[in-house]
Amino acid sequence: MDFISKPTLILDKNKCLVNISKMAQKAESQKIELRPHFKTHQSLEIGNWFRDFGVNKITVSSLSMASYFINGGWQNISIAFPFNFREIFFLDELAGKAELHQTVLSLDSVVKLDKQLKNRIYIWVEVDTGAMRSGIRYDDYNKFDEILEFLKKAEKLNFQGFLTHAGHTYRARFKEEVNFIYNDTVEKLNNLRTRYNAYFPELKISVGDTPSCILVDKLHGIEEMRPGNFVFFDVMQTVIGSCTDEEIALALACPVVAKDSSRNILVVYGGGVHLSKESVILYDGTEIFGRIALPSGKTWGKKLENCYVSSLSQEHGLVTVTKEVFNVISEGELIFILPVHSCLTADLMQGYRLPNGSAIDHMSAKIFKSSK
Amino acid sequence: MDFISKPTLILDKNKCLVNISKMAQKAESQKIELRPHFKTHQSLEIGNWFRDFGVNKITVSSLSMASYFINGGWQNISIAFPFNFREIFFLDELAGKAELHQTVLSLDSVVKLDKQLKNRIYIWVEVDTGAMRSGIRYDDYNKFDEILEFLKKAEKLNFQGFLTHAGHTYRARFKEEVNFIYNDTVEKLNNLRTRYNAYFPELKISVGDTPSCILVDKLHGIEEMRPGNFVFFDVMQTVIGSCTDEEIALALACPVVAKDSSRNILVVYGGGVHLSKESVILYDGTEIFGRIALPSGKTWGKKLENCYVSSLSQEHGLVTVTKEVFNVISEGELIFILPVHSCLTADLMQGYRLPNGSAIDHMSAKIFKSSK
Repeated sequence: MDFISKPTLILDKNKCLVNISKMAQKAESQKIELRPHFKTHQSLEIGNWFRDFGVNKITVSSLSMASYFINGGWQNISIAFPFNFREIFFLDELAGKAELHQTVLSLDSVVKLDKQLKNRIYIWVEVDTGAMRSGIRYDDYNKFDEILEFLKKAEKLNFQGFLTHAGHTYRARFKEEVNFIYNDTVEKLNNLRTRYNAYFPELKISVGDTPSCILVDKLHGIEEMRPGNFVFFDVMQTVIGSCTDEEIALALACPVVAKDSSRNILVVYGGGVHLSKESVILYDGTEIFGRIALPSGKTWGKKLENCYVSSLSQEHGLVTVTKEVFNVISEGELIFILPVHSCLTADLMQGYRLPNGSAIDHMSAKIFKSSK
Repeated sequence: MDFISKPTLILDKNKCLVNISKMAQKAESQKIELRPHFKTHQSLEIGNWFRDFGVNKITVSSLSMASYFINGGWQNISIAFPFNFREIFFLDELAGKAELHQTVLSLDSVVKLDKQLKNRIYIWVEVDTGAMRSGIRYDDYNKFDEILEFLKKAEKLNFQGFLTHAGHTYRARFKEEVNFIYNDTVEKLNNLRTRYNAYFPELKISVGDTPSCILVDKLHGIEEMRPGNFVFFDVMQTVIGSCTDEEIALALACPVVAKDSSRNILVVYGGGVHLSKESVILYDGTEIFGRIALPSGKTWGKKLENCYVSSLSQEHGLVTVTKEVFNVISEGELIFILPVHSCLTADLMQGYRLPNGSAIDHMSAKIFKSSK
């Protein structure tokens, strides 16, 4: 790892392929369409790894991301983000290039889309089953009725079904909790299916969160799943119980730049602009910003017990370690940080390195985020 | 603002120039060297605005950033980050191009630097006066003694003085608290000055945090200040009391993509990958991720009372508003979010737009963060 001189995001491709393989097998054995969310890796090259497992439909969270993957050859893309009125021309342009699925939440959206689009698109109505992020509340039948009534006669909109992100599983800490949320979510969605089944007998149900897709053994009552995070996993998923520490496929290699023996703290080059400020609260109430491992072979070794990132500023990370670990690490050496939220860390780092140093692209390095 | 179709970081140049002007005037009237920290804006163009106010020395937080500004013509740069052993060749290369000041925290650092560098550099010893981030504890005289003894006979290292970042002012909520921390910090640093004054009569003291530089009327006992955040300010600084809402010079314009009347919540396109997940706790215990303003003229209007960003995921923002505000905003319209931490928002957005749409550069769009 001599090539590493500053915070560097190392990707363990083998772990990544195993994570993809397991999810693809689960989907296939349960006859569920796997439409993975590519917002986690945002990489054409990593996207291509999914093709070997039969994946040809994907999910993204912005039109910029849809455009990036269309340019990489993907032909069936679902935008799991509420329709943005201000990008309707961009949406129409992309709908001319690929089969585009758009999430909607209001009658205004579908009226505007049907009136203004030149190209056909596929429509998913987003349902809030309890996550309280976005989506129409599962029992707000007036809203569903008015949208679906319109969709019956829409000219350019093909209604596909109901979509949800049961993000409240991220607050769960046991498999039983995740299963409870999943069952509740699927029941609410299937009530909607029953309500509209007569006119739309082929409507589908699509569920998104990684904890459900991993921790629910039998994914009943759905036709499609859109997990994203599982490709890398992260510390958050270990706390929920969706993965083990060993399944986490990326880590930020950080140079140790100072040591404070009075507190057993290592100061590392690696901060909020590399890891993001996402944290998680452990069972004992400790707030942590990452877990720690030491270099081992060409990547990193086992997670170190009782060691964690305790604070982050812009470029500094403070790592609390045990006395034993403190004593074996010198200034100038590397430690690896397992991120709390791999999607945000990947977005910030704008690219990956394999252990041999070769680069893997990330969309963030290629686009200018603000409008032109 | 018709050009805005997605989250777009708008910079109010006039506010920015006023912020720079006030700080430059304060430094000049108190005969203190202003060496502003450019990690906040990370922009050559914004950096150039400082030149008109007589600034010719700057602070950065990484060698990558030093290199970027050297390429932009800056000739005197202080790296206010612990020496990173793994970048010593890069440091030496940059020291051949500009007057480089490096922060150190250990005897090992100065020994290695003096032995391996070909070019001369200027050395600041970092002191922890209570922020507990990095730096040698102010009363750990053995460490200071061994470093300064070495610096007396070092060949390529010019000792400049003691540097601190009194980051604990960020936990203060009153001017009196900030003044208390400043006085305590300066007393500790001047004790060190007294201890080493006989051999180093010209040693300087350098202090960094924006709250102190703004809220301490008479900046006694120091020769240099390195504030960074004041160029833009942000919601965090309003909570500390360093600025008013009207002085915040940037805001993220976000399209409203959905409305939830049951909770008076606006869902906006604008999430953790745009704003960062930095939050602040208000007096009443509410955790907020940004403040809200409506479009007004070519930028944004007054901060809306009792409205705030209550939750962020990767691309979604949830904005809690009053019923009155809820009723006047439609899907497809823009709102402005005043960020909690402008440095991180700027780093994520990778560039700025002036209200007329013209682009201003940010270093993040130009570099690949990981090592080659």
